[in-house]
Amino acid sequence: MMDIRKGMAEGDKVALAKLITMAEDGRRDAMDIIRDMYGKTGGAYLIGITGPPGVGKSTLTAGLARIYSSLGKKVGIIACDPTSPYTGGAILGDRIRMQQLFTDPNIFIRSMGSRGHLGGLSKSTRIAARIMDIFGMDYIFIETVGVGQSEVEIAGTADTTVMVLAPGLGDDIQAMKAGIMEIGNVFVVNKCDRDGAEKTAREIKAMLDFNGDAAWRPQVILTAAQENKGVDDVMDAIGRHMEYIKDSGVFINKRKEHIRDEIMDLAAQSIMCDIMNGLSKEELSNIVDKVANGETDPYTASDRILKTIRYHLNGRDFD
Amino acid sequence: MMDIRKGMAEGDKVALAKLITMAEDGRRDAMDIIRDMYGKTGGAYLIGITGPPGVGKSTLTAGLARIYSSLGKKVGIIACDPTSPYTGGAILGDRIRMQQLFTDPNIFIRSMGSRGHLGGLSKSTRIAARIMDIFGMDYIFIETVGVGQSEVEIAGTADTTVMVLAPGLGDDIQAMKAGIMEIGNVFVVNKCDRDGAEKTAREIKAMLDFNGDAAWRPQVILTAAQENKGVDDVMDAIGRHMEYIKDSGVFINKRKEHIRDEIMDLAAQSIMCDIMNGLSKEELSNIVDKVANGETDPYTASDRILKTIRYHLNGRDFD
Repeated sequence: MMDIRKGMAEGDKVALAKLITMAEDGRRDAMDIIRDMYGKTGGAYLIGITGPPGVGKSTLTAGLARIYSSLGKKVGIIACDPTSPYTGGAILGDRIRMQQLFTDPNIFIRSMGSRGHLGGLSKSTRIAARIMDIFGMDYIFIETVGVGQSEVEIAGTADTTVMVLAPGLGDDIQAMKAGIMEIGNVFVVNKCDRDGAEKTAREIKAMLDFNGDAAWRPQVILTAAQENKGVDDVMDAIGRHMEYIKDSGVFINKRKEHIRDEIMDLAAQSIMCDIMNGLSKEELSNIVDKVANGETDPYTASDRILKTIRYHLNGRDFD
Repeated sequence: MMDIRKGMAEGDKVALAKLITMAEDGRRDAMDIIRDMYGKTGGAYLIGITGPPGVGKSTLTAGLARIYSSLGKKVGIIACDPTSPYTGGAILGDRIRMQQLFTDPNIFIRSMGSRGHLGGLSKSTRIAARIMDIFGMDYIFIETVGVGQSEVEIAGTADTTVMVLAPGLGDDIQAMKAGIMEIGNVFVVNKCDRDGAEKTAREIKAMLDFNGDAAWRPQVILTAAQENKGVDDVMDAIGRHMEYIKDSGVFINKRKEHIRDEIMDLAAQSIMCDIMNGLSKEELSNIVDKVANGETDPYTASDRILKTIRYHLNGRDFD
């Protein structure tokens, strides 16, 4: 126990990794540590990186992380994309390139790859980001694959969201129109040495003209992340957007939204614990069986459970 | 109000669509209708269709739906994929082909496309499936794009999950290895008239040998859904898997899992309503501000909220 607090305070990445795992498992001792160290949070800036598979999101993230690290900044990366090289689902060349990141003392990578997070990937991501924030990260990247609606939205909870595309993704851009395009604060056309990069950039700009948000006009930047071309420009664009949201009050509102979600999650979690404690496994399975047999319905069953925990709550001490 | 109950009982698809929207909005009158009609559920068989974008999931789903419809079965389709032709994010040819489905009296399509479902796409899908079940659907397809982890898992909650791939997706198959491959009960290599289809099928089989589940060996089927080639074979494979899970008890266990999740969702939802009712908007925003200012932390804030609702719960009538 003590080593994790100590490790977190001393910047030990092993302690950081362990604490995230403990929190994902819902362990109370992890929550206690987070509660005690909560005062240290608030310093991290969250950057979402999203886009279709194969456009080079990880390479761009790696390039950005390296620049921030060279400026002495501490960087966390949360990779929610199963096709990401961090997660092992990648070709060998990519994986070797990524290894450099793992040995950089300023960079910490957490893969949310293959563990089950059903209904909870966004929550797990939130907790991992919170713990990285406590650890003292200056920037936290959240990389998700921008095809599934819910995963795009996870990236969209970041302070600045970078939407990465590549030339020749005609259909994908079509698909992006469906409510997803609005999430990008900065657009990147990666692999810009390929045919059609300018055309893709023009299409994105046309779409932005159409869906124009008067207050913030996203830049569209051409990069070749593998050759490190244009990565600085992306960093500058992120910096400009950061200034914009800090000046306009968007930033503090996002922070408050995160806090509200966090409080509500904690309250719901605590109540769920009460339900589970107030109800034996046998009682729960009896109720489920009754619904399965058609003797009752889930609504009546839920009311019955709430009745049970009401008495439990009555007997509970709060402070 | 009355028309929706009547419409649901009489098989009116407009009433069905309306009820799903009402339930998504969390309206209590929708819940009352579901509760009253709950006895009608349990007849529908859930089929998940997942795989990377562009492999032809929607075309295969359409082909399967048409066959079931021609056999007099009622079919619901829930499309969670923003690149799906149902959602509008598709090229014109596809969309025209899909229109036939919309006019088929036995088929109902619900797109979960671009509305926000953050943290809740799986829940929204569950509710839509439940309402379609009440409506009297025999088969319900849940189509998700199999790249994002959480969306694959949504398809994986179906009774039978069909994993669709296409030739020449080397990297994607690599990625699928990362914990996603196990979800498929039936594998389809679509666009089998393209080069490399046999090779892709062989790779999948090799992977299945490696991850062998002794009890159920998934079939790998070659299709060209656009030419309607092999679609019957997929239907047969689904039928065989259905028999297997019904005989082996897997089916009834899945049903009970769904019921348990449903009861827990309802309980949590009801408690969240209590929290929101027990707490004014002002109180909540005060607590959030205090955390934002560093005066307190989310854990203490959550405890305070629970204390508030405890008194509220005390005064509540349950039956």
